[in-house]
Amino acid sequence: MIDKLEYTNKHELIFLDQTLLPLKEKYLKTKNYKDVAEAIASLRIRGAPLIGIAAAYGVVMGVHHYDTDNRKNFEIHFYKVTETLRNSRPTARNLFYAIERMTKVFEENIEKDFLDIEDALLREADAIFDEDAEMCKRIGVNGSELLGEKMSVLTHCNAGELATGGIGTALGIIYTAKQQGKDIFVYVDETRPLLQGSRLTAYELEENGVEFDLIIDSMAANLMRDGLVDCVIVGADRIASNGDAVNKIGSYSLAVNCAFHKIPFYVAAPGSTIDFDIKSGEEIEIEERSSEEITRIKGEKITRSDISVQNPAFDLIPNELITAIVTEYKVHFPPYNFGGLKHMFQSYISTLRSEEDGE
Amino acid sequence: MIDKLEYTNKHELIFLDQTLLPLKEKYLKTKNYKDVAEAIASLRIRGAPLIGIAAAYGVVMGVHHYDTDNRKNFEIHFYKVTETLRNSRPTARNLFYAIERMTKVFEENIEKDFLDIEDALLREADAIFDEDAEMCKRIGVNGSELLGEKMSVLTHCNAGELATGGIGTALGIIYTAKQQGKDIFVYVDETRPLLQGSRLTAYELEENGVEFDLIIDSMAANLMRDGLVDCVIVGADRIASNGDAVNKIGSYSLAVNCAFHKIPFYVAAPGSTIDFDIKSGEEIEIEERSSEEITRIKGEKITRSDISVQNPAFDLIPNELITAIVTEYKVHFPPYNFGGLKHMFQSYISTLRSEEDGE
Repeated sequence: MIDKLEYTNKHELIFLDQTLLPLKEKYLKTKNYKDVAEAIASLRIRGAPLIGIAAAYGVVMGVHHYDTDNRKNFEIHFYKVTETLRNSRPTARNLFYAIERMTKVFEENIEKDFLDIEDALLREADAIFDEDAEMCKRIGVNGSELLGEKMSVLTHCNAGELATGGIGTALGIIYTAKQQGKDIFVYVDETRPLLQGSRLTAYELEENGVEFDLIIDSMAANLMRDGLVDCVIVGADRIASNGDAVNKIGSYSLAVNCAFHKIPFYVAAPGSTIDFDIKSGEEIEIEERSSEEITRIKGEKITRSDISVQNPAFDLIPNELITAIVTEYKVHFPPYNFGGLKHMFQSYISTLRSEEDGE
Repeated sequence: MIDKLEYTNKHELIFLDQTLLPLKEKYLKTKNYKDVAEAIASLRIRGAPLIGIAAAYGVVMGVHHYDTDNRKNFEIHFYKVTETLRNSRPTARNLFYAIERMTKVFEENIEKDFLDIEDALLREADAIFDEDAEMCKRIGVNGSELLGEKMSVLTHCNAGELATGGIGTALGIIYTAKQQGKDIFVYVDETRPLLQGSRLTAYELEENGVEFDLIIDSMAANLMRDGLVDCVIVGADRIASNGDAVNKIGSYSLAVNCAFHKIPFYVAAPGSTIDFDIKSGEEIEIEERSSEEITRIKGEKITRSDISVQNPAFDLIPNELITAIVTEYKVHFPPYNFGGLKHMFQSYISTLRSEEDGE
């Protein structure tokens, strides 16, 4: 398993700088929660679940390294820390979910000694990490039921070990199926503009001994036409209550091509990715990133500087193009309503809300 | 108009090195036909029609700079030159068409003085160049009939001035429509792996004052879903008798997305692109290019070196996904048979064939 992130007993976060992969495996170490927010914003730490984990530890660190005797200041500081981390990226549901959980623990323990509050926060961050690893395992087991004995799976971006606290979501299914003795071949979309496919997924599959071919994103359609792709599996950054999913830009084009070529399109994500507050994906804010992600590569200019660019980081896959959604609970088929899962998460969130309202 | 290629009276070919665009406008000059073949293979000279023109001048240059009194040697040398140029790239029909025309002229004049043969070859190369410019104009006029008064057109790769002897095929339609006073906005696919969209089409549109947004290839589907694309226009490297077209990798995915979103998908190409010898696109050889086009960018590694890559340069768009094909003769609609065009080109080619057979 790749070491991607560790919180030390000195209250430091050590993390793999994913922007340098696969050519450099460089670890960064920080005691400053602002560095965590920066690392998330700059994609050094990326992948919706891993962002949530890092943000949770960022909160612990922000509280630990703040020196005060004044309870009011302590409280103000806490909200400043969570606000900074919450604003690091706008789309991933898991980030907000982690911050909500940390905030709930903080508010439940607000009357206690500062050290006890800090302990409770650390336990919650550890729990988020551990639960995520456990979720990945279950997603792997649930999802591998969708795969036959010999399959070619196409994936986009990186929804693997590097994106989560465990073996990954989309790639977790592949690792699990392989462990079960299934013969799995992977087509890896390079995933423009930031090349998470060629940089991260290819790296990760190689580390895990999974066979693959790297392709440019727009070649996926050709492989489908030639009957070489048995299914597509991707992760998700947020899922609406109706099953609309938001994932890395390019996912929608793949889903359309799957529909056209009659190939199953699967989304794999933990329950924490589902945003029960929103009815459809149209309500999800899509992050627009710097045009330089397209006009430069590795810092070097490839176009003239002043040209007009559209560069959304994600796109929306409407539920009707999703064959199934795999969570840690089960494989969900359309029409999506997420049954008991919805109830569980919603009761949790509404508890949080009513407490907030009460103040 | 961009100066992309010129044959001088000193029998040198001066050409713009398109691999360095848009940041450097560097012209290369050569007297050696092998350099022309190399420039085509390395994409310094690219675009199906421009490749044909460059190869024709390559033939003239190869003959001019060869010193012999022996007619047999002269003849052997001619075929060596054409063979070298013909082998520079495997897919573009126009390359073979140009070489066929040069060969026909050579064989018709084989009994004449060497200087007269060379003159005839130069006149033929000039004719190929001039005809191509004229074809572009006519394609522009024919194709602009397909465009309304206010249109957003999406294009892939570069089928413009830089790819032809004139104003271009796909982009020629846009320039013509704009000149007619139509309000045209262009979405430019960056076109991985070699970024002809961001490097060349963006450069060319800016030079010609056409408004555009640059996007990554896999974002085209999203613009279509949002109703922002009125039609797609691409060029073609070869077209089969049944209307199947081969064009830059990624074109098929666009055509599928057009079908799904009910958006017209147009192909613009000169008649010389049509290969009447082949019944369907399945017979067309698709060039597989170096994996380094994907694993490196500007020479710098972005993946580990030893990974497995698929990198075809082109893909096949089946005729049922093509709304219309625009040639210099007219707008062709399905079912494609290319009527009189077929007769014209076929009689030309069969003349050539029967002469070859006769020897």
